[in-house]
Amino acid sequence: MKFDVIAFDADDTLWQNETLFAATKDKFKALLNPYCSPETIQEQLDHTEIRNLRYFGYGIKGFTLSMIETAIQLTDGHIRGSEIQKLIEFGKAMLTTPIKLFDHVEQVLTNLARSYTLMLVTKGDLFDQESKLARSGLSRYFTYVEILSEKDATSYRTLLQTYHIPPERFLMVGNSLRSDILPVIEIGARTVYIPYDITWSHENIFPENQGAKGYYECCHIGEVPELLHTLEQC
Amino acid sequence: MKFDVIAFDADDTLWQNETLFAATKDKFKALLNPYCSPETIQEQLDHTEIRNLRYFGYGIKGFTLSMIETAIQLTDGHIRGSEIQKLIEFGKAMLTTPIKLFDHVEQVLTNLARSYTLMLVTKGDLFDQESKLARSGLSRYFTYVEILSEKDATSYRTLLQTYHIPPERFLMVGNSLRSDILPVIEIGARTVYIPYDITWSHENIFPENQGAKGYYECCHIGEVPELLHTLEQC
Repeated sequence: MKFDVIAFDADDTLWQNETLFAATKDKFKALLNPYCSPETIQEQLDHTEIRNLRYFGYGIKGFTLSMIETAIQLTDGHIRGSEIQKLIEFGKAMLTTPIKLFDHVEQVLTNLARSYTLMLVTKGDLFDQESKLARSGLSRYFTYVEILSEKDATSYRTLLQTYHIPPERFLMVGNSLRSDILPVIEIGARTVYIPYDITWSHENIFPENQGAKGYYECCHIGEVPELLHTLEQC
Repeated sequence: MKFDVIAFDADDTLWQNETLFAATKDKFKALLNPYCSPETIQEQLDHTEIRNLRYFGYGIKGFTLSMIETAIQLTDGHIRGSEIQKLIEFGKAMLTTPIKLFDHVEQVLTNLARSYTLMLVTKGDLFDQESKLARSGLSRYFTYVEILSEKDATSYRTLLQTYHIPPERFLMVGNSLRSDILPVIEIGARTVYIPYDITWSHENIFPENQGAKGYYECCHIGEVPELLHTLEQC
């Protein structure tokens, strides 16, 4: 085998995540509709989220606090307690909603776990990510689970050192160029990029990746085993 | 050397943590003083925190959301937006407050890092704990940092397997019997218990620990090197 460990990102690689945030943002806009236009709400929420990243990091709890802060700002403090309670309920609903796996995920993990050691490498809130993994029913496929606060070259390097994995024997599968692909290529390991939204990805992909060392691409996770089969024979 | 790794808990072992929550609870009671008695506020906040643990886990963001929810409940939704904004500011202040190390900490870690591999093992919110470690200035002493969502026998067992540490060569230092001591003794490793509050600990310590295999106790962290010196000579 060419690889000691095949690692997978989770959010928007194994299961839907962005759609959950998008749906909650729609509910948020509907709640604040008496006060503001959807465009103003979206703009102010984006602004608050980015400003709060240094306090809260990534995750649903921080997102909920940013919704509350945005609601107070946009209503000049006139938002009612019962409406803020609804925002907390939106957050709790996100934290407990059933996980929607993408097609092929279960079958691909079953297949690969027979030949490889699988690792889950996610970013975000520790409690929330562990809870999602438990609800997904996928934990039995993963020998190792690593939840990082940031996915950059330094954190991947530390990860591989901890597990004594040589970079050339590590393959990372994910949907984010910034978090799953570029830093992993940087440390000399290999990557499979699975765009979550075809349109978005084709607009954002850096053309130089296409031929970059350690960069491969699949349309969906169902194609990963065949790619691995090909790589093993190279 | 008898030990491959000396592990330390962080909150209330290396630096003050509970005092920060206590101080914020006092500010919370002062803010809600026009609506309720301090006793009612404390009781309702405790109740909300415990009920929300399954959604939010441990940490400051969850605590902040629980303060907001408590304030809405206790005021029948009459709390003003500007007051809820203050609660969010309380949370942000907690997340960025300077870390107060206990006496002897820096000197003990400098000393031990010369002979041992040191590991930090904490529980709680990933982003918050990493931020505290960075602000503490102590990260240079720790070869490994592990932030767990729960500290029980299973999570310690997984931790030792990941790092290939035999239990008899692992020593854990901490202030919590429930999180740092009992589960570590359960998996056959050794522990040093440092009560954070002498009175509290003497009331709560289980007498059978005193002679339990793998259980040692120090009054403060400054005593740990001498204890280790003695253990190495046994």
